Amino acid sequence: MDVEKLRNEISNRMPVARYEHVLRVAETAKGLAENYKVSIVNAELAALFHDIAKFMAGDSLRKIIVDQNLDKRLLLFDQELWHGPVGALIAHEEFKIENVDVLNAIRFHTTGRTNMSQLEKIIYVADKIEPGRKFPGVEQLREIAMQDLDKIMGACIQQSVLFLVSKGVPVYPDSIDCYNEQAFKRGNVRI
Amino acid sequence: MDVEKLRNEISNRMPVARYEHVLRVAETAKGLAENYKVSIVNAELAALFHDIAKFMAGDSLRKIIVDQNLDKRLLLFDQELWHGPVGALIAHEEFKIENVDVLNAIRFHTTGRTNMSQLEKIIYVADKIEPGRKFPGVEQLREIAMQDLDKIMGACIQQSVLFLVSKGVPVYPDSIDCYNEQAFKRGNVRI
Repeated sequence: MDVEKLRNEISNRMPVARYEHVLRVAETAKGLAENYKVSIVNAELAALFHDIAKFMAGDSLRKIIVDQNLDKRLLLFDQELWHGPVGALIAHEEFKIENVDVLNAIRFHTTGRTNMSQLEKIIYVADKIEPGRKFPGVEQLREIAMQDLDKIMGACIQQSVLFLVSKGVPVYPDSIDCYNEQAFKRGNVRI
Repeated sequence: MDVEKLRNEISNRMPVARYEHVLRVAETAKGLAENYKVSIVNAELAALFHDIAKFMAGDSLRKIIVDQNLDKRLLLFDQELWHGPVGALIAHEEFKIENVDVLNAIRFHTTGRTNMSQLEKIIYVADKIEPGRKFPGVEQLREIAMQDLDKIMGACIQQSVLFLVSKGVPVYPDSIDCYNEQAFKRGNVRI
Protein backbone atom coordinates (compact mmCIF):
# COMPACT_ATOMS: atom_id res chain seq x y z
CA MET A 1 0.00 0.00 0.00
CA ASP A 2 1.45 3.34 -1.12
CA VAL A 3 0.87 5.56 1.94
CA GLU A 4 1.15 8.83 0.00
CA LYS A 5 -1.49 7.67 -2.48
CA LEU A 6 -3.67 6.52 0.39
CA ARG A 7 -3.36 9.88 2.15
CA ASN A 8 -4.40 11.59 -1.05
CA GLU A 9 -7.37 9.29 -1.52
CA ILE A 10 -8.49 9.79 2.09
CA SER A 11 -8.09 13.56 1.95
CA ASN A 12 -10.50 13.59 -1.00
CA ARG A 13 -13.25 12.02 1.09
CA MET A 14 -13.45 14.57 3.90
CA PRO A 15 -13.17 18.29 4.66
CA VAL A 16 -9.68 19.66 5.28
CA ALA A 17 -10.26 20.10 9.01
CA ARG A 18 -11.22 16.44 9.39
CA TYR A 19 -8.26 15.30 7.30
CA GLU A 20 -5.97 17.30 9.57
CA HIS A 21 -7.55 15.47 12.52
CA VAL A 22 -6.83 12.16 10.77
CA LEU A 23 -3.16 13.11 10.35
CA ARG A 24 -2.93 14.08 14.04
CA VAL A 25 -4.50 10.76 15.04
CA ALA A 26 -1.94 8.99 12.84
CA GLU A 27 0.97 10.81 14.51
CA THR A 28 -0.44 10.16 17.99
CA ALA A 29 -1.10 6.50 17.17
CA LYS A 30 2.44 6.04 15.85
CA GLY A 31 3.83 7.48 19.09
CA LEU A 32 1.67 5.16 21.18
CA ALA A 33 2.57 2.17 18.96
CA GLU A 34 6.27 2.85 19.38
CA ASN A 35 5.84 3.23 23.14
CA TYR A 36 3.84 0.01 23.50
CA LYS A 37 5.83 -2.04 20.95
CA VAL A 38 3.00 -2.43 18.45
CA SER A 39 3.46 -2.30 14.65
CA ILE A 40 3.85 1.39 13.72
CA VAL A 41 2.87 0.59 10.14
CA ASN A 42 -0.44 -0.92 11.25
CA ALA A 43 -1.08 1.94 13.66
CA GLU A 44 -0.62 4.50 10.86
CA LEU A 45 -2.76 2.48 8.46
CA ALA A 46 -5.66 2.08 10.90
CA ALA A 47 -5.47 5.76 11.87
CA LEU A 48 -5.53 6.95 8.25
CA PHE A 49 -8.62 4.84 7.58
CA HIS A 50 -10.49 5.38 10.85
CA ASP A 51 -12.76 8.21 9.64
CA ILE A 52 -12.99 7.22 5.97
CA ALA A 53 -16.78 6.77 6.21
CA LYS A 54 -17.36 9.76 8.48
CA PHE A 55 -18.74 12.00 5.74
CA MET A 56 -20.91 9.50 3.93
CA ALA A 57 -24.62 10.34 3.96
CA GLY A 58 -26.67 8.71 6.73
CA ASP A 59 -28.83 6.89 4.19
CA SER A 60 -25.77 5.34 2.50
CA LEU A 61 -24.37 4.24 5.87
CA ARG A 62 -27.74 2.74 6.81
CA LYS A 63 -28.02 0.87 3.52
CA ILE A 64 -24.54 -0.63 3.91
CA ILE A 65 -25.29 -1.71 7.51
CA VAL A 66 -28.48 -3.45 6.34
CA ASP A 67 -27.18 -4.90 3.05
CA GLN A 68 -23.83 -6.07 4.40
CA ASN A 69 -25.30 -7.59 7.52
CA LEU A 70 -23.40 -5.40 9.99
CA ASP A 71 -24.66 -5.24 13.59
CA LYS A 72 -28.28 -4.06 13.25
CA ARG A 73 -28.32 -2.68 16.80
CA LEU A 74 -26.24 0.20 15.42
CA LEU A 75 -29.33 1.57 13.68
CA LEU A 76 -31.05 2.13 17.03
CA PHE A 77 -28.20 4.33 18.20
CA ASP A 78 -26.76 7.67 17.17
CA GLN A 79 -25.48 7.87 13.61
CA GLU A 80 -22.09 8.86 15.01
CA LEU A 81 -21.57 5.15 15.76
CA TRP A 82 -22.09 3.97 12.17
CA HIS A 83 -18.94 5.17 10.41
CA GLY A 84 -16.52 2.84 12.24
CA PRO A 85 -18.05 -0.47 11.11
CA VAL A 86 -18.74 0.90 7.62
CA GLY A 87 -15.20 2.32 7.43
CA ALA A 88 -13.74 -1.13 8.19
CA LEU A 89 -15.87 -2.57 5.40
CA ILE A 90 -14.66 0.05 2.93
CA ALA A 91 -11.03 -0.47 3.95
CA HIS A 92 -11.47 -4.18 3.30
CA GLU A 93 -13.63 -4.17 0.16
CA GLU A 94 -12.36 -1.11 -1.65
CA PHE A 95 -8.77 -0.80 -0.40
CA LYS A 96 -8.11 -4.52 0.06
CA ILE A 97 -6.86 -4.21 3.63
CA GLU A 98 -6.69 -7.78 4.90
CA ASN A 99 -5.14 -7.38 8.36
CA VAL A 100 -7.97 -8.23 10.76
CA ASP A 101 -6.41 -6.26 13.62
CA VAL A 102 -6.25 -3.11 11.48
CA LEU A 103 -9.85 -3.64 10.36
CA ASN A 104 -11.04 -4.13 13.95
CA ALA A 105 -9.19 -1.01 15.07
CA ILE A 106 -11.16 0.95 12.44
CA ARG A 107 -14.41 -0.88 13.26
CA PHE A 108 -14.36 -0.28 17.02
CA HIS A 109 -12.69 3.12 17.23
CA THR A 110 -15.89 4.92 18.28
CA THR A 111 -17.55 2.36 20.54
CA GLY A 112 -14.74 0.33 22.04
CA ARG A 113 -15.55 -3.27 22.99
CA THR A 114 -14.36 -5.99 25.35
CA ASN A 115 -11.13 -7.86 24.63
CA MET A 116 -9.64 -5.07 22.55
CA SER A 117 -6.23 -5.71 21.02
CA GLN A 118 -3.36 -3.34 21.75
CA LEU A 119 -3.80 -1.78 18.30
CA GLU A 120 -7.53 -1.27 18.86
CA LYS A 121 -6.82 0.49 22.15
CA ILE A 122 -4.14 2.67 20.53
CA ILE A 123 -6.50 3.90 17.80
CA TYR A 124 -9.33 4.50 20.29
CA VAL A 125 -7.02 6.48 22.56
CA ALA A 126 -5.24 8.39 19.77
CA ASP A 127 -8.59 9.53 18.36
CA LYS A 128 -9.53 10.81 21.80
CA ILE A 129 -6.33 12.62 22.82
CA GLU A 130 -4.76 13.84 19.57
CA PRO A 131 -3.42 17.40 20.08
CA GLY A 132 -6.45 19.06 18.46
CA ARG A 133 -8.97 17.62 20.94
CA LYS A 134 -10.32 20.01 23.54
CA PHE A 135 -12.56 18.79 26.36
CA PRO A 136 -12.38 18.97 30.14
CA GLY A 137 -9.84 16.43 31.37
CA VAL A 138 -8.04 15.83 28.06
CA GLU A 139 -4.76 17.11 29.52
CA GLN A 140 -4.88 14.52 32.31
CA LEU A 141 -5.53 11.81 29.71
CA ARG A 142 -2.50 12.92 27.66
CA GLU A 143 -0.34 12.84 30.79
CA ILE A 144 -1.02 9.15 31.45
CA ALA A 145 -1.12 8.02 27.81
CA MET A 146 2.38 6.54 27.78
CA GLN A 147 2.24 4.91 31.23
CA ASP A 148 -0.08 1.93 30.83
CA LEU A 149 -2.30 1.12 27.83
CA ASP A 150 -5.12 -0.38 29.92
CA LYS A 151 -5.07 2.56 32.28
CA ILE A 152 -5.36 5.16 29.49
CA MET A 153 -7.96 3.05 27.65
CA GLY A 154 -9.99 2.75 30.88
CA ALA A 155 -9.77 6.49 31.48
CA CYS A 156 -10.79 7.27 27.88
CA ILE A 157 -13.82 4.95 27.82
CA GLN A 158 -14.87 6.25 31.25
CA GLN A 159 -14.74 9.81 29.93
CA SER A 160 -16.79 8.82 26.87
CA VAL A 161 -19.50 7.01 28.84
CA LEU A 162 -19.61 9.82 31.39
CA PHE A 163 -20.14 12.33 28.58
CA LEU A 164 -22.99 10.30 27.06
CA VAL A 165 -24.77 9.72 30.38
CA SER A 166 -24.39 13.37 31.39
CA LYS A 167 -26.20 14.24 28.14
CA GLY A 168 -28.85 11.59 28.80
CA VAL A 169 -28.28 9.78 25.50
CA PRO A 170 -28.19 5.98 25.12
CA VAL A 171 -24.88 4.15 25.57
CA TYR A 172 -24.09 1.44 23.00
CA PRO A 173 -23.78 -2.02 24.62
CA ASP A 174 -20.19 -2.54 23.37
CA SER A 175 -19.19 0.72 25.05
CA ILE A 176 -20.65 -0.11 28.45
CA ASP A 177 -19.17 -3.63 28.23
CA CYS A 178 -15.80 -2.05 27.44
CA TYR A 179 -16.20 0.39 30.35
CA ASN A 180 -17.20 -2.41 32.75
CA GLU A 181 -14.27 -4.58 31.66
CA GLN A 182 -11.83 -1.76 32.39
CA ALA A 183 -13.61 -0.92 35.67
CA PHE A 184 -13.33 -4.55 36.81
CA LYS A 185 -9.62 -4.56 35.87
CA ARG A 186 -9.06 -1.57 38.14
CA GLY A 187 -10.42 -3.68 40.98
CA ASN A 188 -13.40 -3.30 43.25
CA VAL A 189 -13.83 0.29 44.24
CA ARG A 190 -16.38 0.27 47.05
CA ILE A 191 -19.23 2.70 46.52
CA MET B 1 -50.77 -8.87 56.69
CA ASP B 2 -50.80 -6.83 59.93
CA VAL B 3 -48.79 -3.73 58.98
CA GLU B 4 -47.96 -2.79 62.59
CA LYS B 5 -46.56 -6.27 63.24
CA LEU B 6 -44.65 -6.09 59.99
CA ARG B 7 -43.14 -2.70 60.89
CA ASN B 8 -42.04 -4.13 64.20
CA GLU B 9 -40.49 -7.18 62.56
CA ILE B 10 -38.67 -5.04 60.01
CA SER B 11 -37.39 -2.57 62.61
CA ASN B 12 -35.75 -5.52 64.41
CA ARG B 13 -33.65 -6.35 61.38
CA MET B 14 -31.89 -3.03 60.90
CA PRO B 15 -30.37 -0.06 62.77
CA VAL B 16 -32.78 2.71 63.79
CA ALA B 17 -31.43 5.16 61.19
CA ARG B 18 -32.08 2.68 58.38
CA TYR B 19 -35.56 1.88 59.71
CA GLU B 20 -36.34 5.61 59.69
CA HIS B 21 -35.22 5.67 56.05
CA VAL B 22 -37.59 2.77 55.34
CA LEU B 23 -40.51 4.69 56.88
CA ARG B 24 -39.66 7.79 54.82
CA VAL B 25 -39.52 5.65 51.66
CA ALA B 26 -42.93 4.23 52.58
CA GLU B 27 -44.44 7.71 53.01
CA THR B 28 -42.86 8.95 49.76
CA ALA B 29 -43.99 5.82 47.90
CA LYS B 30 -47.57 6.23 49.18
CA GLY B 31 -47.63 9.81 47.93
CA LEU B 32 -46.34 8.76 44.52
CA ALA B 33 -48.81 5.84 44.39
CA GLU B 34 -51.72 8.15 45.15
CA ASN B 35 -50.54 10.62 42.52
CA TYR B 36 -50.09 7.95 39.83
CA LYS B 37 -53.18 5.88 40.76
CA VAL B 38 -51.28 2.80 41.89
CA SER B 39 -52.28 0.64 44.89
CA ILE B 40 -51.20 2.53 48.01
CA VAL B 41 -51.29 -0.70 50.01
CA ASN B 42 -48.83 -2.38 47.65
CA ALA B 43 -46.60 0.70 47.60
CA GLU B 44 -46.38 0.72 51.40
CA LEU B 45 -45.78 -3.03 51.54
CA ALA B 46 -42.98 -2.98 48.96
CA ALA B 47 -41.38 0.05 50.64
CA LEU B 48 -41.43 -1.57 54.09
CA PHE B 49 -39.72 -4.66 52.72
CA HIS B 50 -37.28 -3.05 50.30
CA ASP B 51 -34.25 -3.03 52.64
CA ILE B 52 -35.10 -6.12 54.70
CA ALA B 53 -31.92 -7.90 53.59
CA LYS B 54 -29.71 -4.81 53.71
CA PHE B 55 -27.98 -5.76 56.95
CA MET B 56 -27.47 -9.44 56.35
CA ALA B 57 -23.82 -10.51 56.25
CA GLY B 58 -22.23 -10.64 52.79
CA ASP B 59 -21.56 -14.36 53.13
CA SER B 60 -25.23 -15.08 53.90
CA LEU B 61 -26.36 -13.01 50.91
CA ARG B 62 -23.86 -14.80 48.67
CA LYS B 63 -24.99 -18.23 49.89
CA ILE B 64 -28.65 -17.40 49.21
CA ILE B 65 -27.83 -16.09 45.71
CA VAL B 66 -25.97 -19.33 44.92
CA ASP B 67 -28.32 -21.80 46.67
CA GLN B 68 -31.56 -20.22 45.47
CA ASN B 69 -30.37 -19.81 41.91
CA LEU B 70 -30.67 -16.02 41.80
CA ASP B 71 -28.88 -14.15 38.99
CA LYS B 72 -25.22 -15.19 39.41
CA ARG B 73 -23.99 -12.05 37.63
CA LEU B 74 -24.80 -10.23 40.88
CA LEU B 75 -21.77 -11.83 42.51
CA LEU B 76 -19.44 -10.07 40.09
CA PHE B 77 -20.79 -6.69 41.13
CA ASP B 78 -20.81 -4.61 44.28
CA GLN B 79 -22.47 -6.24 47.29
CA GLU B 80 -24.79 -3.23 47.47
CA LEU B 81 -26.73 -4.86 44.61
CA TRP B 82 -27.39 -8.13 46.45
CA HIS B 83 -29.97 -7.13 49.06
CA GLY B 84 -32.81 -6.38 46.60
CA PRO B 85 -33.10 -9.85 45.06
CA VAL B 86 -32.49 -11.54 48.43
CA GLY B 87 -35.04 -9.22 50.08
CA ALA B 88 -37.69 -10.28 47.55
CA LEU B 89 -36.91 -13.90 48.33
CA ILE B 90 -37.27 -13.30 52.08
CA ALA B 91 -40.54 -11.40 51.58
CA HIS B 92 -41.87 -14.35 49.62
CA GLU B 93 -40.51 -17.30 51.59
CA GLU B 94 -40.61 -15.98 55.11
CA PHE B 95 -43.43 -13.42 55.01
CA LYS B 96 -45.56 -15.19 52.38
CA ILE B 97 -45.89 -12.14 50.12
CA GLU B 98 -47.38 -13.50 46.90
CA ASN B 99 -47.98 -10.35 44.86
CA VAL B 100 -45.42 -10.57 42.03
CA ASP B 101 -45.47 -6.81 41.44
CA VAL B 102 -44.60 -6.14 45.09
CA LEU B 103 -41.84 -8.77 44.97
CA ASN B 104 -40.40 -7.28 41.77
CA ALA B 105 -40.47 -3.78 43.27
CA ILE B 106 -38.34 -5.10 46.14
CA ARG B 107 -36.11 -7.14 43.81
CA PHE B 108 -35.24 -4.32 41.39
CA HIS B 109 -35.21 -1.32 43.73
CA THR B 110 -31.41 -0.91 43.54
CA THR B 111 -30.66 -1.79 39.93
CA GLY B 112 -33.79 -0.89 37.98
CA ARG B 113 -34.45 -2.89 34.82
CA THR B 114 -36.28 -2.56 31.50
CA ASN B 115 -40.07 -2.80 31.38
CA MET B 116 -40.54 -1.73 35.00
CA SER B 117 -44.10 -1.63 36.30
CA GLN B 118 -45.48 1.59 37.77
CA LEU B 119 -45.01 0.17 41.27
CA GLU B 120 -41.39 -0.79 40.55
CA LYS B 121 -40.68 2.75 39.35
CA ILE B 122 -42.39 4.24 42.41
CA ILE B 123 -40.24 2.23 44.84
CA TYR B 124 -37.06 2.98 42.89
CA VAL B 125 -37.85 6.69 42.86
CA ALA B 126 -39.07 6.87 46.47
CA ASP B 127 -35.84 5.23 47.68
CA LYS B 128 -33.87 7.84 45.79
CA ILE B 129 -35.73 11.04 46.73
CA GLU B 130 -37.16 10.40 50.21
CA PRO B 131 -36.72 13.54 52.35
CA GLY B 132 -33.61 12.22 54.13
CA ARG B 133 -31.59 11.84 50.93
CA LYS B 134 -28.90 14.42 50.30
CA PHE B 135 -26.96 14.49 47.05
CA PRO B 136 -26.37 17.12 44.36
CA GLY B 137 -29.49 17.43 42.25
CA VAL B 138 -31.92 15.68 44.62
CA GLU B 139 -34.04 18.85 44.92
CA GLN B 140 -34.56 18.97 41.16
CA LEU B 141 -35.59 15.31 41.23
CA ARG B 142 -38.16 16.00 43.97
CA GLU B 143 -39.57 18.90 41.97
CA ILE B 144 -40.45 16.71 38.97
CA ALA B 145 -41.49 13.61 40.96
CA MET B 146 -45.23 14.18 40.61
CA GLN B 147 -45.20 15.31 36.97
CA ASP B 148 -44.52 12.18 34.96
CA LEU B 149 -43.42 8.79 36.28
CA ASP B 150 -41.23 7.94 33.28
CA LYS B 151 -39.58 11.34 33.42
CA ILE B 152 -38.68 11.05 37.12
CA MET B 153 -37.62 7.40 36.70
CA GLY B 154 -35.41 8.42 33.75
CA ALA B 155 -33.87 11.24 35.76
CA CYS B 156 -33.24 8.97 38.77
CA ILE B 157 -31.58 6.16 36.81
CA GLN B 158 -29.50 8.72 34.90
CA GLN B 159 -28.29 10.17 38.18
CA SER B 160 -27.43 6.69 39.49
CA VAL B 161 -25.49 5.64 36.39
CA LEU B 162 -23.71 9.00 36.28
CA PHE B 163 -22.65 8.54 39.90
CA LEU B 164 -21.28 5.04 39.25
CA VAL B 165 -19.38 6.03 36.09
CA SER B 166 -17.95 9.15 37.76
CA LYS B 167 -16.54 6.81 40.43
CA GLY B 168 -15.24 4.42 37.77
CA VAL B 169 -17.10 1.41 39.16
CA PRO B 170 -18.88 -1.21 37.01
CA VAL B 171 -22.52 -0.62 36.07
CA TYR B 172 -24.87 -3.63 36.39
CA PRO B 173 -26.36 -4.64 33.01
CA ASP B 174 -29.98 -4.21 34.21
CA SER B 175 -29.16 -0.63 35.23
CA ILE B 176 -27.64 0.39 31.90
CA ASP B 177 -30.51 -1.33 30.07
CA CYS B 178 -32.95 0.63 32.23
CA TYR B 179 -31.04 3.87 31.57
CA ASN B 180 -30.95 3.21 27.82
CA GLU B 181 -34.68 2.42 27.72
CA GLN B 182 -35.47 5.72 29.42
CA ALA B 183 -32.98 7.59 27.21
CA PHE B 184 -34.62 6.16 24.07
CA LYS B 185 -38.05 7.19 25.41
CA ARG B 186 -36.83 10.76 25.74
CA GLY B 187 -36.06 10.68 22.03
CA ASN B 188 -32.91 11.09 20.06
CA VAL B 189 -30.72 13.76 21.53
CA ARG B 190 -28.01 14.44 18.97
CA ILE B 191 -24.54 14.33 20.42
